[in-house]
Amino acid sequence: MNILIVHAHPEPQSFTDTLKQTAIDELTRLGHHVEVSDLYEMNFNPVASREDFRELGNPEYLNYALEQRNAAKNHLLADDIQIEIEKVQKADLLILNFPMYWTSVPAIMKGWIDRVFVSGIFYGGKRFYNHGGMVGKKAMLCFTLGGREHMFGENAIHGSIETLLLPVQRGTLAYAGFDVLPSFAAYHVPYISDEARKKMIVDYQQHLQGLEQLQPLEFPKLEQFDDKLYPLNKG
Amino acid sequence: MNILIVHAHPEPQSFTDTLKQTAIDELTRLGHHVEVSDLYEMNFNPVASREDFRELGNPEYLNYALEQRNAAKNHLLADDIQIEIEKVQKADLLILNFPMYWTSVPAIMKGWIDRVFVSGIFYGGKRFYNHGGMVGKKAMLCFTLGGREHMFGENAIHGSIETLLLPVQRGTLAYAGFDVLPSFAAYHVPYISDEARKKMIVDYQQHLQGLEQLQPLEFPKLEQFDDKLYPLNKG
Repeated sequence: MNILIVHAHPEPQSFTDTLKQTAIDELTRLGHHVEVSDLYEMNFNPVASREDFRELGNPEYLNYALEQRNAAKNHLLADDIQIEIEKVQKADLLILNFPMYWTSVPAIMKGWIDRVFVSGIFYGGKRFYNHGGMVGKKAMLCFTLGGREHMFGENAIHGSIETLLLPVQRGTLAYAGFDVLPSFAAYHVPYISDEARKKMIVDYQQHLQGLEQLQPLEFPKLEQFDDKLYPLNKG
Repeated sequence: MNILIVHAHPEPQSFTDTLKQTAIDELTRLGHHVEVSDLYEMNFNPVASREDFRELGNPEYLNYALEQRNAAKNHLLADDIQIEIEKVQKADLLILNFPMYWTSVPAIMKGWIDRVFVSGIFYGGKRFYNHGGMVGKKAMLCFTLGGREHMFGENAIHGSIETLLLPVQRGTLAYAGFDVLPSFAAYHVPYISDEARKKMIVDYQQHLQGLEQLQPLEFPKLEQFDDKLYPLNKG
């Protein structure tokens, strides 16, 4: 497979970086081709703006999604966006590798999504979920966090991690058509022993070795909804 | 009340901007004092990095939360962060005003949270949720989106909007101690008539007039959990 790892951490020696390197090494060893977008290293601009288009369809009023559609069609996207789109298009699997900030991705990664997941390419009209622009590709999250595993779950203090991940896994990746594979979470990272970290690396290697067998998460299919997107089956 | 509106939209003529202006006018008319952080206008930097600290506790290895704690204690936070913290500290109510991007806040607003919600001030140790640093303050979201209201809900195509908002409303605002008031959502904005927009503005004015009567959303209280944050009542 062609695999794109999008990585975002402000400290190059972080354990999140070690997980990125683990993925590069293990996936390469397994015969895959790995490309990396290291957003901090690239000094990636996360702020969506009119500068994202070399020419505007409507210079008087910026409708960002409309300009994305226009720019995608007419090859007017800013170079940094175009380059990232082509990396995603080439990839069979996208891995987002990040430290959880405020139960979500860091701003620099949110901005990579805001700017790169362009209307007209990643979605548009009735092309979303299982008809999204990225159908046939897989995506997966790998993230580190400070909290302990028992703090997440149905009755746990922060609620279920799957629920907290819905904006990324469902509202973003599944929406754009990706099959979303089960994520790899490294809990309590700043507080654990070197030994526990080593075990996490082995766990991640095993997660990666089983990639092709992992069942994607279940998300909506357009066929379950009518023309106006009301559910066909109220059950 | 002192009210801080944090606003983020790349187009100054947007309807999201109109909602911000509606809040300024209506809340001022009601006798409140309103301050605005317009993140695009401020060219706010959303990327958490070592530059956020005038001096580092550990220059060899950036642990962002630890440096936040150190910098908060020793007055070493970068000026742009310090200014925003003081605005929040002065406010009784924080309003986040934004267009929903990928079922979440735009990157520039995520970065405002990543950088401004500093460990040691907004939370730290066992100070979170109803013991968080911002206890006694209220927070509220006001957001615009392209989707229609019926596309959100328990069996709807995108799932429930309250669930999608959990990372912001629970994992961020409630975690930091804010009482989170019911949000104001403006659906399908790019596609509706001027008349429908005018009605939304009236609806928002009424929402704001009823602010003091709004019941906060229910989120965890630390007293429901033991010392290690396991739930006391498994029911």
